[in-house]
Amino acid sequence: MNFSSKLIEQSVEAFASLPGIGRKTALRLTLHLVGKSPEVTEQFTEAISKMRRSIQHCTICHNLSDEPICNVCADKRRDRSLICVVESIRDVMAIEDTSQYRGLYHVLGGLINPLEGIGPSELTIDSLLHRIAVSDSEAKEVILAISPTIEGDTTMFYITKKLKGSPVKVSSIARGVSFGGELEYADEVTLGRSIVARVPYKLSNE
Amino acid sequence: MNFSSKLIEQSVEAFASLPGIGRKTALRLTLHLVGKSPEVTEQFTEAISKMRRSIQHCTICHNLSDEPICNVCADKRRDRSLICVVESIRDVMAIEDTSQYRGLYHVLGGLINPLEGIGPSELTIDSLLHRIAVSDSEAKEVILAISPTIEGDTTMFYITKKLKGSPVKVSSIARGVSFGGELEYADEVTLGRSIVARVPYKLSNE
Repeated sequence: MNFSSKLIEQSVEAFASLPGIGRKTALRLTLHLVGKSPEVTEQFTEAISKMRRSIQHCTICHNLSDEPICNVCADKRRDRSLICVVESIRDVMAIEDTSQYRGLYHVLGGLINPLEGIGPSELTIDSLLHRIAVSDSEAKEVILAISPTIEGDTTMFYITKKLKGSPVKVSSIARGVSFGGELEYADEVTLGRSIVARVPYKLSNE
Repeated sequence: MNFSSKLIEQSVEAFASLPGIGRKTALRLTLHLVGKSPEVTEQFTEAISKMRRSIQHCTICHNLSDEPICNVCADKRRDRSLICVVESIRDVMAIEDTSQYRGLYHVLGGLINPLEGIGPSELTIDSLLHRIAVSDSEAKEVILAISPTIEGDTTMFYITKKLKGSPVKVSSIARGVSFGGELEYADEVTLGRSIVARVPYKLSNE
């Protein structure tokens, strides 16, 4: 691409440095901002710049937060006996979107992956163990909501082993064929495992 | 989407206000910036913010430019007898990328579109006529490089009519089946018109 303006080129480079945005899209975004009033660009860059300057990690659960303690941890109405352990803030948002869970979270910030040099000490596992071990801890159950990949399984195994002997119960979210999913379209592993891990059928009025 | 952080939400809204970026992508971009050092975000927002603050339109050809007169208009080596009239800065970039044109440009900033209330006075047509009419004008030919849509045809018709009686020649870029294009895949209008507008065949060594 041949830019008549250095400023445009730098703006295109900036947008194109983001994941999933190519130079053609970056140019489109740049020209979009040029076509609007300067205030629009100012609001845009200020929102992002302010976010990055002020965002912090909750000192309890490591979720992204505006304050040292996040909304969820600060909310007195949440069930403090449950801690749902997830890989990233995206998972917290996905679970919050279901409105089915009223406990607390713990964001690991990744999964154990020796090939990429990510060991337990790179994650927030120690902070989780400490959180459960302190004398005023109200935690009764740790729910592992982690993907069953090699890294996920390793991480779940490690956490479970570390929690052995502790009074908290360790559980994992249910896995199986999705609700509304057609059996013939379910992948083999999911279908196979959901037969092995079958549960007693209950009538809804029982 | 359920945000635990107002700052994240505002950043997502900012990204999602751009064309073609949905809220899921906006969240991905936001979390990408959170995962990098604060300097990365600062460089990103500063490049865009600086671009919007300082960008101007060339006072001669209305192309986007860092200075009051753009690179192309300021370049003494360019052929000042040719003015290529285009709709937008994107077209300038596309033509510059071909390296086949060494004349000047004139960016209209749109096309005549009465349905959307865009008349000749909303475009830079008067500026083009003035540019050609001034006593020290070197312009000998105006090349219309405008899409043959209803709006494009109207705009070309209007400019041509306005230039009647002026000593400059008016031409339009060649249209036909693209080089390397298979005839069977060319659209009917292009193929039909390229037969009607056939040109004498020349051997390359003639």
